[in-house]
Parts: sequence; structure tokens; C-alpha cells
Amino acid sequence: MKFSVNSSLSYVVNGPTTFIFNIHALNTTSQTVLTEQLIVDPPMEIEEYKSHDGSCRFVRLKVHQPTNFTITYEAEVEMKYTIIDERNSAKLVPVVELDSYIASFLYPSRYCQSDKLTKFSFKEFGHYPSIYEKVLAITEWIYTNIEYISGSTNAQTSAMDTITERVGVCRDFAHLGIALCRALSIPARYFTGYAYQLNPQDFHACMEAYIDGNWIIFDSTKLAPLNGLIKIATGRDAADSAVSCIFGNAAGTSVYVNCNIVEGSFTPFRYDGNQKGVSFQ
Amino acid sequence: MKFSVNSSLSYVVNGPTTFIFNIHALNTTSQTVLTEQLIVDPPMEIEEYKSHDGSCRFVRLKVHQPTNFTITYEAEVEMKYTIIDERNSAKLVPVVELDSYIASFLYPSRYCQSDKLTKFSFKEFGHYPSIYEKVLAITEWIYTNIEYISGSTNAQTSAMDTITERVGVCRDFAHLGIALCRALSIPARYFTGYAYQLNPQDFHACMEAYIDGNWIIFDSTKLAPLNGLIKIATGRDAADSAVSCIFGNAAGTSVYVNCNIVEGSFTPFRYDGNQKGVSFQ
Amino acid sequence: MKFSVNSSLSYVVNGPTTFIFNIHALNTTSQTVLTEQLIVDPPMEIEEYKSHDGSCRFVRLKVHQPTNFTITYEAEVEMKYTIIDERNSAKLVPVVELDSYIASFLYPSRYCQSDKLTKFSFKEFGHYPSIYEKVLAITEWIYTNIEYISGSTNAQTSAMDTITERVGVCRDFAHLGIALCRALSIPARYFTGYAYQLNPQDFHACMEAYIDGNWIIFDSTKLAPLNGLIKIATGRDAADSAVSCIFGNAAGTSVYVNCNIVEGSFTPFRYDGNQKGVSFQ
Amino acid sequence: MKFSVNSSLSYVVNGPTTFIFNIHALNTTSQTVLTEQLIVDPPMEIEEYKSHDGSCRFVRLKVHQPTNFTITYEAEVEMKYTIIDERNSAKLVPVVELDSYIASFLYPSRYCQSDKLTKFSFKEFGHYPSIYEKVLAITEWIYTNIEYISGSTNAQTSAMDTITERVGVCRDFAHLGIALCRALSIPARYFTGYAYQLNPQDFHACMEAYIDGNWIIFDSTKLAPLNGLIKIATGRDAADSAVSCIFGNAAGTSVYVNCNIVEGSFTPFRYDGNQKGVSFQ
Repeated sequence: MKFSVNSSLSYVVNGPTTFIFNIHALNTTSQTVLTEQLIVDPPMEIEEYKSHDGSCRFVRLKVHQPTNFTITYEAEVEMKYTIIDERNSAKLVPVVELDSYIASFLYPSRYCQSDKLTKFSFKEFGHYPSIYEKVLAITEWIYTNIEYISGSTNAQTSAMDTITERVGVCRDFAHLGIALCRALSIPARYFTGYAYQLNPQDFHACMEAYIDGNWIIFDSTKLAPLNGLIKIATGRDAADSAVSCIFGNAAGTSVYVNCNIVEGSFTPFRYDGNQKGVSFQ
Repeated sequence: MKFSVNSSLSYVVNGPTTFIFNIHALNTTSQTVLTEQLIVDPPMEIEEYKSHDGSCRFVRLKVHQPTNFTITYEAEVEMKYTIIDERNSAKLVPVVELDSYIASFLYPSRYCQSDKLTKFSFKEFGHYPSIYEKVLAITEWIYTNIEYISGSTNAQTSAMDTITERVGVCRDFAHLGIALCRALSIPARYFTGYAYQLNPQDFHACMEAYIDGNWIIFDSTKLAPLNGLIKIATGRDAADSAVSCIFGNAAGTSVYVNCNIVEGSFTPFRYDGNQKGVSFQ
Repeated sequence: MKFSVNSSLSYVVNGPTTFIFNIHALNTTSQTVLTEQLIVDPPMEIEEYKSHDGSCRFVRLKVHQPTNFTITYEAEVEMKYTIIDERNSAKLVPVVELDSYIASFLYPSRYCQSDKLTKFSFKEFGHYPSIYEKVLAITEWIYTNIEYISGSTNAQTSAMDTITERVGVCRDFAHLGIALCRALSIPARYFTGYAYQLNPQDFHACMEAYIDGNWIIFDSTKLAPLNGLIKIATGRDAADSAVSCIFGNAAGTSVYVNCNIVEGSFTPFRYDGNQKGVSFQ
Repeated sequence: MKFSVNSSLSYVVNGPTTFIFNIHALNTTSQTVLTEQLIVDPPMEIEEYKSHDGSCRFVRLKVHQPTNFTITYEAEVEMKYTIIDERNSAKLVPVVELDSYIASFLYPSRYCQSDKLTKFSFKEFGHYPSIYEKVLAITEWIYTNIEYISGSTNAQTSAMDTITERVGVCRDFAHLGIALCRALSIPARYFTGYAYQLNPQDFHACMEAYIDGNWIIFDSTKLAPLNGLIKIATGRDAADSAVSCIFGNAAGTSVYVNCNIVEGSFTPFRYDGNQKGVSFQ
């Protein structure tokens, strides 16, 4: 399938500020950026680079003087995904067999304090027979127990807040899911991207869990089909894969995001109890 | 200088458990492991591997049956260090020029919630003219304001706890320093190692701050000379560079650590206001 | 029924310290102290007084010099209780009709941050038809979901910690229950006392919820029969009704508690689904 | 001096809701309400009552149907205050001599976790010779270190947040001051009231500390003269003395507050290093 994505972020800058943007579609085995364009208006010098592990494409931009500007990204992306039958992938890859990179997604991180949720996660989800069923149960539990309210949380909200206050946005849903997976020794990482049929359109966040050799996508918000997600980045949590980081004195004034299908038919895919997993690897 | 280091950790295991140990001395530009030996008693199969970025050497060991065991590491290590005159390295490497790997040490992490300490850190340390002086002021502030009490904290204690409760151990001192540096956009990372002349002997933790192209060591506990530190690992914080991680059901029963000089004369080096920095790179 | 209670607390005092003890059995409508004796060894001047609202009997004692001492309390207490049929007391006393004293137990307090648990409590317990059933469901939920582990928490542990970390002692079970009740606008208060058939013997803590004009006792630890509780104090939470408060430099060395029946037959009473409530008023 | 105060709060009510308002001027030894008027528009039945300890005058009002309404309070208040020379009141009233009511303001409360700030408070303020100087130093420290930014915090913000994030409003300044006092065994309570010359006009909050037998007012925001405060209520913290509590489903739409002098000359009084204390008792 071929998608067109675009996003446009506007800022008012009050003093010298460095921005790191993370809005490019990623090139991966299953995702190819066919064409893309980045426009900064008014024009400014930018630097593009990848994160150390290749999981993010950053744009760095330094603004020296107070000004207003808009950064716009547009791309066409060919995306394919794999549907994996999880009935045969019931077992946990033992920590002892994990690749060291994947093992790094077992550790607690800024917004995913898995070390504090061990008892909770074992009690609620430990009894499910397979890893897939555990992660699906976590996803359903979050969907059922956390209320999605736009604007209810902020950039400092973490999994510990969400599990007690029971309210949040996609970022919070993702963080809580990641923390609950890691608490069960299941590697899990933050996924940020564009989402087809997300309404209203915005950047989206969900998570990937590592099951039997594949990163499988799970979205406890259930706000968009799983097979319409265009990956921007993955990371430990929003601390290292946020859409934008601002070092200095500036404030966002508007965000516009869009994602459309341009070629191929689209049948929305959601998990419905038939033990399927969607992987973008 | 040549050091001998050794450590010995004993555990009682009650059920199937995977251990990840992080007790090997690292091989770096400035540190060479001349001889080393790892003994598990009773003997068990182990796996040695490096972290993704080469900053840790892990040993993974899976225990299937309830048992007691001891893991012992011994090594001789040749270590050199560089003393850098920081009077000429006054400026912050702009975020815009940082290598993406180094930039990853700007982000908040599990135990170093730098995003919550921005105002504090700017108010207390923002006015110091150079990066070196800022980090030294952070180090002195922690030394002066946080009380070192063995056993006062636990594995869940974070920089937010330490800055309010004003008590901790070397791990907590390091986490707080890292958080305060990152809050000022200074890359900082966790350092764990063996420490000559640390009394009583134990694993030690402190931090490295990235100043003008070098990782410079700072130790706000002031419990050991800066030039007697043998690096085991660096990481974002103790979440990814702890001495041991236990996935399962087991408990530590004893820890024994030792670090001696075997060749070369040793003049303890501490920062004393003459704008020197010690780097192990 | 007539109970004998006694407790003995020993301390080592390192510098000038004021102690406030809260170990006397209370005189209430349903509880009469027949005989009692307080011994401080070595003898020291003490002051006995009641809290402002009569819900605690304090002993204040100032130690000027470093020393060791033991305070021992012994009493015989006549206690009766009322079993209330809650099938007819289904409705919430509207906030608008609450006495101002009782309304004060609706507010969040140090260890019972009910304001943060509103969504959680409504979601989990809001649908139960009566107040009694709501509180019973809270009690059962805590019993089922929180693990009782001696020594797992400390004096700073609050309901927010317990609901996430899922472990605690009687004090933590009580605080969480109180917070969840207040989140539903049900007045709830901390109860501390002696407990017959508690094993091992210790001071005990649970909670009272205000249902249709009566304070009804609930104990989510289920460690002792409800009709063998001798009240020492009630309060907002352990902040104002702890067994001891120490202002100065001292540490406890031992605690000994005992509670026996001396007259009357005792049939342990527990809630078993027949909609009964035990009240000590 | 004679002041006129008035306040007007508007709400939209979406379902059955009980409101508790705390907007009446209090009658105390030093403050006399000469005339007052409470208007609810549209008219509704209300109930006026005092808190258990006489420190608040509440209005309770139950709205059964969705509606909009406005509650307006107007009063003329005669207020006098005492200026106390604190050079002669240097000593702490020992905990052992405190009245039990006053001792209750030593305990930690929902927003004032003094038990977590003991080391901090002793280190920063413990060395000041008198209680007055300690409290004044706390006040100055907050004024210097915490940034006042309207709208920066919310109803769940506590002293622990404020001491780390270093930003807040009058409520947060008061909570932090109270916590730091209690950490030094100085009784301290929350004060809410009308404030002459506060700009812009709003309800105000600050604290009273108990020094040598008097409750002395301290305001670390320094936004209003100390001798122009008309007391509405005192309490442990905003949990039991907030201007309004809403149990149900409603939202505030506007707040209007005013405070003027109607008789007497007014010379703004602020602490200026001459060891004076203002008391409203």
C-alpha cells in the first residue's frame, strides 16, 4: 500500500533555540519512503541525521533570533506489513537468548517505570498462557480502564500517573502498556507515527512488543487500524522518540497532520481474538 | 598504572532465574584488561556479550533449579587517564553539533528526570560561566546538600527523591548529578566501576559529563580519588548499567569487592579549584 | 466482652527527644477502660492529654539526656459492638447532610490521596448499588490485589504507592481503603487498635467507613476478627493517629503487644456476604 | 480598619452536585463581620455551618438539575492586627508544651509532606537562632527560589512538586512553607482570605506559623501587604480549607473577587528585617 503523509508544525521563537524534530517517515524493511520533502519557512539551515541505532531520523535546526517559523514534511511511503499467526508463537524468548539490543527494551525508562509495576502486572496478566495473550490482555485492560481525554495530561505524565489517575492520551496509553510488558520481562518499545483513519488526524503513538522474534504492534487506544500506521520512530519511550524537542525558549502555535492512502485497497485490521499479530519489520 | 580488581557476589535462588551481571572491567582506549577470570561456583553455563553501544560487558546466566551460587571476577587492568585543562574549554558544545549518540545522554531517563529539574538547575547553576564550572558547581552542591548514608535508599530511588529527601548513596548522588546536567543541556551519563582507595570497598558509581568533546568524570561523593576508577560500564542511568539484574526469584546474600594497585605510583587526584578535568577516554 | 491488652515499646535515645505515644485504649460509648496502668522505666515525667476531637489519648514525654527506656501500657477493657443489618441502609448520606466533623473525613490527607483516585474508584466500585456494598467491594479488592508482606513498606508509603506497587502492611491496606472510599464521597477514617487473635500479635490498623449514620469497621487484611478490635484511636490517617511520633533523635528497639479475652465467649465475626456491618460506636 | 470584600463565583452544573463554599469572612478576636450578604442566583436553598474547630464557615448547596448559577458574597469587616516584637520570642514552644489542637498542625498533610523534607529543612534553616528567623528564612527562600506563574499548577500539586519544579501560585507557596515549618517541628497552618492591594484581585493564600504563643502570618509570594488580609479560613492545607469543593459534575466559569478599604488609613506592612510579626489572633 502507498500512503501520503504530511505534517506541519509552527512555532514562535523568543530566544536562541535548538529544535530536534522527529517527523520523517523511517526507511525499514517493510517501509520505503518513495518521495519526500522538508520545507522550513522562512528558510533556515537544517541538519538531518539518524539516531545511533537507526530507529529515528532527526532534523536539527538552530534558531538564533526571535522569529516565527513553520516546518513542513511531506512524503509518499510504500508500506507493507506481515500478519503473524501467534497460535504457534506461544513462548517467551528467554531473557538469556535475547539480543543485547532487544534486551535494552526490558529496562525501565523515564516514563515507563516497569520496576514499580511487577506485582501488578504479574497478578493481572501473569496467568495468560502465551506472550501474545499477555500483551493482548494488557492492551485490552488499558483500553477498558483508562479514559482517553485529549489534553488531560502533559509531557511529564508517566505510566505511574496513568495507572492511578486512569486518564490520558495515546502517549500515556503507550507508556503504560510498555511498562506493564517490561514488568513481565517482555521487551517493549514506543512507536510513533502517522496513522491512517485516525480521527482527528494527529501524530499517533502506540507500542511494539517483542514476541518470538518479531516486533508486534499493539494500540490500546483502538483509535486507528493497525495496518495503517506509518512509522516515524521507535524508542524506549517518548523521552528519546518525541516528535519534537525544544532546547531554548520557544512555543508551538499549531500542528497539522494528515495521512491518506494513495494506492492499494485498505481493509482495516484490528485484533479480534483470532490470535493474529501485525509486524512492520 | 596497573590495578587488580575482584568482586564476588553470592545468591540464593528459589526458582528459575536469569541473572545479568555487569562486573567485567571494560576495554577502552584508556583501559586495557590484561588478564581476567570469571568463576561461577558451582559451575554453570554462562554467556558473555556486549551492550549494543559497547559500553557494558554483560554476563548472562540462567539458573533452572533452586540453589546457592557465587560468581567471582578477577582481573588485572592497565589504566591511564588524561588531565585536561578546562580553562580553555569554556563553551557548551551546542546541541546542534552533538553526535547523535552523545545527544542521547541529554534525554531524561528512569532515575534522572531532568525534565522536572530545569528551573531548579538554571536557577542554581545557570550563571556559572563555563560548562566545567557548571558541572563542578553541581558536584559541590550535591556533596554539600545530600547526606551520604549507607542503606538509606533502594533500587527505586530516583533523582526526584534525592533532591527532596537529601539523603542517598553513590548511585543516588550520580543520578542527581546527571539529572541536573541534562536539565542544562549538558550530556551526562552514569559510570559504574571499581574504585581504588574507596573505603569500605564496594562497587562505586559516579558520572561523566560531556565537556568540549571529552567525557569528564565527576564524583559528588568525594569518597575516592578520581584517578583510581576502573570502568565497568557507562549508561543512561542504573537502569541499563546496574551491576546485576535479576529476572526471577532470587536474593543476594553477600558482596565482596576489592581494588588494589599492583604497579605504578599513585597520587590521589581530586578537583581543587584549578580547573582540571579527568577523562578516561 | 472483657479484654486485657498490653504493649511495651523500648527506645534508645541519643539526644533531646519528645515522644508522643498513642497506645491507650479509648473510652467510647461502646468501649470502657476498666483498669489501666502506664509505666515508664526508668521513671520519667509524662503528660496525658486528648486530641482536640477526643479521638486519641496521647502521652507526651520529653527525654533530655541520652538513655534507654521502655514504656508499658496495660489495661482491661469492656467492649461491646453492634451488628447492623446493612440491607436497609443502602443510601449514601448526601454530603449536604453530613455533620461538619464527619465531612472532614471526605478530604484527602497525607497518606490517602483520594483526589487522585476518583476515576479508578468510580470505575471499579461506582456500580455497586449500596454504600455498604461499595465499601465491601473496596475491601475485597484490596484483599485480593495487594500482597501483605511484613517490612515491605515504610512510614512514607502512601495509598498511591500501594495501589501501584501492590504490596504493604495493615497501615497501607487501611490507607488505600480510606482513599478509595473518599474518592466516592464516602467518609472514611483510620482506625488503630489492639486486635484479638491477630497472629503474630502487634498493633493493628484498619478503617471505618461512615454508612447511613454509623461508623462501620472494615479490615481488608482479614488478619483478625472484626469483633475483637480494641480501639486506640481514629484519625484522618496515620499522620495524626500513629502509635508513636518521635521529635528528636531516637530509635525503637523492640515492640511487644498482646491482647487476650478475659471474660465472655468469643465467636469470631467476619463479613461473609450476608450484609452485616460491625460498629463500635 | 474597615474593609469591604466581595466575591462572585459562577458555575455550570451538568448533573446532581453538592458544593461546599468557603468564602465567608471569619469572625475572630481580631476580625468582626459588620454586615454581610450571600446571594445565590437563581435562588437555591443553602446551609451554613462552621467547621468542627471553628476555623471555617462553610456554605453547602445541593443542585439537583443541570443549571447555571452564581454565588455572591459581600461583607464589611472590621479588622485589627497586632504587631509583635519577635526579638523577645526567640524560643520554640516545645512540642511537649503545645496544646493538642496546635500540635495537630505539626503533622504532615495531603499537600504538605513535611515528613519528606526534614533533612532539607534542617540543613537550610536549622541554624537560624530563633523560630521567627527560621520561618522568615523559609519565606525568603521560597520567594527567591520559586517562580510565581499563574496557571502553572493544579489542584493536585503538592509541596513535593513545588520544591523540585520550582514554580507555582500562592497556594503552592503556602503549602511549601507549611511543610518546611512542620519539618522543623514548628506548627504551621494554611490561611486563605481576601487581600487588599493584591493585583490582580483574587482569593489569596498564605500561612501562619505558631511562634511563642501566637499565630504569625507569613506570605512568601510578597504579593500583598500583610496587614490587609481578611481571613476566610485556616486549615491543615487546601484539602480542608479550599475556597470551593465540588462533589458531582460541574465546572467553574468565572471568579470575581474584590477587597477595598472603606475606613481607616492604610500603611502597607511588610517584614523588613526588624523582627516584627503580624498576628490576627
